[in-house]
Amino acid sequence: MIPYQVIEKKSQGFALKETEIREFVLGYSNGLIPDYQMSALLMAIFIKGMTSDETLDLTRVMLESGERMDFSGSPGFVADKHSTGGVGDKVSILLAPILAVLGIHVPMISGRGLGHSGGTLDKLESIPGFNVNLGLQEWKDLVLSQGLGLIGQTGTICPADKKIYALRDVTATVRSIPLISASIMSKKIAEGIQGLVLDVKTGNGAFMQTLTDSRLLANSLVSIGTGYGIKTTALITDMNQPLGLAIGNWFEIEESVRGLQGNGPADLMDVTYALGAEILRMADPKLSQDEAVEMQKKTVADGSAFEKLKKITELQGGNPKVLDELEKYPKARFQTTIRSTQSGYLSGIDTMSLGFAGIQLGAGRKIISDRIDHSSGMYIHCKLGDKMGVGDEMLTLYSEDEDKLRSVEEQISAGFTFTETTPELPPLIVERIT
Amino acid sequence: MIPYQVIEKKSQGFALKETEIREFVLGYSNGLIPDYQMSALLMAIFIKGMTSDETLDLTRVMLESGERMDFSGSPGFVADKHSTGGVGDKVSILLAPILAVLGIHVPMISGRGLGHSGGTLDKLESIPGFNVNLGLQEWKDLVLSQGLGLIGQTGTICPADKKIYALRDVTATVRSIPLISASIMSKKIAEGIQGLVLDVKTGNGAFMQTLTDSRLLANSLVSIGTGYGIKTTALITDMNQPLGLAIGNWFEIEESVRGLQGNGPADLMDVTYALGAEILRMADPKLSQDEAVEMQKKTVADGSAFEKLKKITELQGGNPKVLDELEKYPKARFQTTIRSTQSGYLSGIDTMSLGFAGIQLGAGRKIISDRIDHSSGMYIHCKLGDKMGVGDEMLTLYSEDEDKLRSVEEQISAGFTFTETTPELPPLIVERIT
Repeated sequence: MIPYQVIEKKSQGFALKETEIREFVLGYSNGLIPDYQMSALLMAIFIKGMTSDETLDLTRVMLESGERMDFSGSPGFVADKHSTGGVGDKVSILLAPILAVLGIHVPMISGRGLGHSGGTLDKLESIPGFNVNLGLQEWKDLVLSQGLGLIGQTGTICPADKKIYALRDVTATVRSIPLISASIMSKKIAEGIQGLVLDVKTGNGAFMQTLTDSRLLANSLVSIGTGYGIKTTALITDMNQPLGLAIGNWFEIEESVRGLQGNGPADLMDVTYALGAEILRMADPKLSQDEAVEMQKKTVADGSAFEKLKKITELQGGNPKVLDELEKYPKARFQTTIRSTQSGYLSGIDTMSLGFAGIQLGAGRKIISDRIDHSSGMYIHCKLGDKMGVGDEMLTLYSEDEDKLRSVEEQISAGFTFTETTPELPPLIVERIT
Repeated sequence: MIPYQVIEKKSQGFALKETEIREFVLGYSNGLIPDYQMSALLMAIFIKGMTSDETLDLTRVMLESGERMDFSGSPGFVADKHSTGGVGDKVSILLAPILAVLGIHVPMISGRGLGHSGGTLDKLESIPGFNVNLGLQEWKDLVLSQGLGLIGQTGTICPADKKIYALRDVTATVRSIPLISASIMSKKIAEGIQGLVLDVKTGNGAFMQTLTDSRLLANSLVSIGTGYGIKTTALITDMNQPLGLAIGNWFEIEESVRGLQGNGPADLMDVTYALGAEILRMADPKLSQDEAVEMQKKTVADGSAFEKLKKITELQGGNPKVLDELEKYPKARFQTTIRSTQSGYLSGIDTMSLGFAGIQLGAGRKIISDRIDHSSGMYIHCKLGDKMGVGDEMLTLYSEDEDKLRSVEEQISAGFTFTETTPELPPLIVERIT
């Protein structure tokens, strides 16, 4: 395998052979192939694409570059949920404990914030003491004893993916369906799961903004999972507005807790239950959709799901008390409320822009070394379709830095559009792909 | 300018602004932008192309990254010739002294071997002592006093191009019309010339194998030169067989000397005179084509062009005696002759493959640190259209390494095709582009 020839072949649009992909990716992972050759290949893949066979090969090579967990002795059904990323998407934090209570084993490996979108790990770390860097054995023990364990990608899980991902992030080669597919699926397969539900976001706050692209991604992900013998379904869900009303790390933990206490926003709870039902029905195909949703609602109503979240928080080094005393969490020093300057029905929200505003306020990183400010973020007081009058509250922003509040106000206001008559709203759950 | 956004813009096929190109290229040249981001951008350009405005901007930025020579006080017309590269193409070694004798000033900056194709610098260095690394002032003095100076790209001429070129060579982004155009033309414009003739090779031994691509490249090069106020023409010439009969560094010097002594192969001399006539007629538009060719033939017939080559050899540190005593040059230890196993008319030669075979024998580099063996190479005993019988001599190969001779024999034999009737031959000079 001559790296030059592999790059040239892909740049001309030809499909690569399994051995070419394997030797190039492992050569890069082992430091034999330099960054500049991998980035040339990534750009060629980004533009020319990959066949589904090539995507499968790439997934396999990344998977086999590291450790693969084995839950074959597990008494429960082992499954996970993964979202392609959006704004205000805190579903994992609700769903993992709900499923654990219902006997599912959830070995969840999550990511950090990326681009405009938040990350589960950053959110969990807003709980004082919560440790997402467990050893693999400790994590596995938690999954088996508690039904869930919440960690980040370790150096031994798909190390080739980890190195390639970092390079994609700085060479504008992130938004590629084969590269996204192989990256997500290699990590999920490495978890040793039997079932997987994918939440593929679509709309102006998603990485895939058109339904066509979201469908392509969903099909690619599902076909890889199925190819590995994992029961896999995808729901394409709407991301033309934030999910729920809270954006920002602690803000989203708080909203998740309220959700587990029975006071969650309808859209957040509906997406959570819909994704959970997919997994419950994989574990027990005799369940009806309604039964699978009702089971989950019961874990909220009886407090068991919230207790599970507190328990895992404690076992992962966090202070569960803060979850009981939400109002005592330190508030950001500065806040400002944005009010509507127009009247009419809210017809559009520039969701990606809201995500970037959150980062600007301190809730995410602009460069890898940025410190996250957990008390920065925002509450939204309106949803698409709401009737608004001039002066009505639209959002409240929180930051430790007053200048940052000022710097995003105008940009945020410009992202709202109104109509005189009730706008047509996108469905929350757009499609189911199996 | 955010490098990520520039890469993304080009990967989506949009044209870059002059400031984006400038800041990216200079940032890379200054070490602020890493190799991996430049290689992602180069691949995006390679696949998506550049508009003629972008190509002009890239040329200007590379030109302005270094020094630009000034011959404005020169009494003679200052001009150069450049070839896009082929096999057996030693025209520069004949043409520079011919033009110098005729009063043209030729500040020639040449390259080394690249891919399957030889380089003027490597050929000149087969003359013992010949120094192609002169200081710019010394070189300029030679051009003004002798009418020619033959050097390689210095660190101060288009340094951005030099760094980008090295990266293209290892990331499979060489064969791109805008990147080739900007690289060639920035260096030629930096020479401070008034006239330029381009020999754009076409055929199976050229970088651009189809006439369509060769035309696109020729037009791109000519339009950049013209845009800089340089009189520029291009001849598209045939590269479906080696030019002349000799391939390899000393072999090509020897054939050039024989050419200047009046014993050159017809195709080599015809291309040389045709390119020379372009420059002579730029310098004096009243000259007819026939007159411009006859003037050159006279410098061969009266020995003045050969004397000029010996003079510049001496002034650049080389031993001119070896040019007078060609037969005394050390021969390679091993040689073998390949004979025809078929009879018929020679209808095709895999020219690129012959070029690579020459490298394999020791006449070029496979990696940058390879030492060139000046006495390795080959003589060809036939041209396209020749009638061959079984057992007729086709080529004689020379190498210091007997195993290498064996290793290329079969590959070379397989590269010849025959027909029963006289094949149609491509014209030597295909097109003239102004």
